[in-house]
Amino acid sequence: MKGYIQVYTGNGKGKTTAALGLALRAAGADKSVYFAQFVKGKPYSELSILTAHITGITLKQYGRGCFIVNKPTEEDIRAAQNGLKDVAGIIERGEYDLVVLDEACIALFYHLFTIEALLDILHRKPESVELVITGRYAPQALIDAADLVTEMKEIKHYYTLGVEAREGIEY
Amino acid sequence: MKGYIQVYTGNGKGKTTAALGLALRAAGADKSVYFAQFVKGKPYSELSILTAHITGITLKQYGRGCFIVNKPTEEDIRAAQNGLKDVAGIIERGEYDLVVLDEACIALFYHLFTIEALLDILHRKPESVELVITGRYAPQALIDAADLVTEMKEIKHYYTLGVEAREGIEY
Repeated sequence: MKGYIQVYTGNGKGKTTAALGLALRAAGADKSVYFAQFVKGKPYSELSILTAHITGITLKQYGRGCFIVNKPTEEDIRAAQNGLKDVAGIIERGEYDLVVLDEACIALFYHLFTIEALLDILHRKPESVELVITGRYAPQALIDAADLVTEMKEIKHYYTLGVEAREGIEY
Repeated sequence: MKGYIQVYTGNGKGKTTAALGLALRAAGADKSVYFAQFVKGKPYSELSILTAHITGITLKQYGRGCFIVNKPTEEDIRAAQNGLKDVAGIIERGEYDLVVLDEACIALFYHLFTIEALLDILHRKPESVELVITGRYAPQALIDAADLVTEMKEIKHYYTLGVEAREGIEY
């Protein structure tokens, strides 16, 4: 089966959750999934259940999840670049049917790695691999390289009601 | 924990998959989930894995999945209305922490039930229940009643490349 490059971007809720749903769907069809999460580092609820109950999904976090309000440190940059190197090999060798690069656009936005490095991976992708890239601020060059792009657009958000992030809903 | 009403609409890919990801995330945080799927009736890959491997998620389909290109039949309408009655009770009794009404907007669009009937359910929702409603063409009255609305906007789609729906990716 031919694989494509999907991008989920925009300021609305639902990008990582859509990638998670895709991982679940692929595993349900006996496909192998590598779910790489950039920037984020804390234990998200959905990840614990993914690794605990579902075979066929490998999860790896390449971030520390704490710089967003500040400036990324050398350590944040190193974590992201090591992650990109990891996934480059995994993708090029065609080891998994579906590879998710969650929050890779945020990593780009914070200059943790370059768009050129990411595009190089895209260009080397074997035809069989489906690639899903998420995160706000997808640059135009990534949109151009993708086959499917969905913008999650915030129409209304309960942040304005003073809702804080809740376990099991937001993380 | 206070629950809210989330809507995922728009013409882009990722609405049902985002709801699936939310279901997975909630189950990962030991919350109970009722996933009601309107209109769709065929066995989606993600659903088989949800019911087979994850406890805490109950799935029910209230559709036959085949009228979209034609006109809904009496049977389609009956299935959707029975579904709405089912979920009305489930929501009002507060039996589940998270209730997903997948493709309820499509059911509205095809007049399988009325917006008034859906809004009535929303108004009776106990404070603790989180409600997620998906599907294209969310009517303005539903957007007004929701706390969070994300529009999945198609920026680019591989339909134009002649890609057909693939098991484990699109369904």
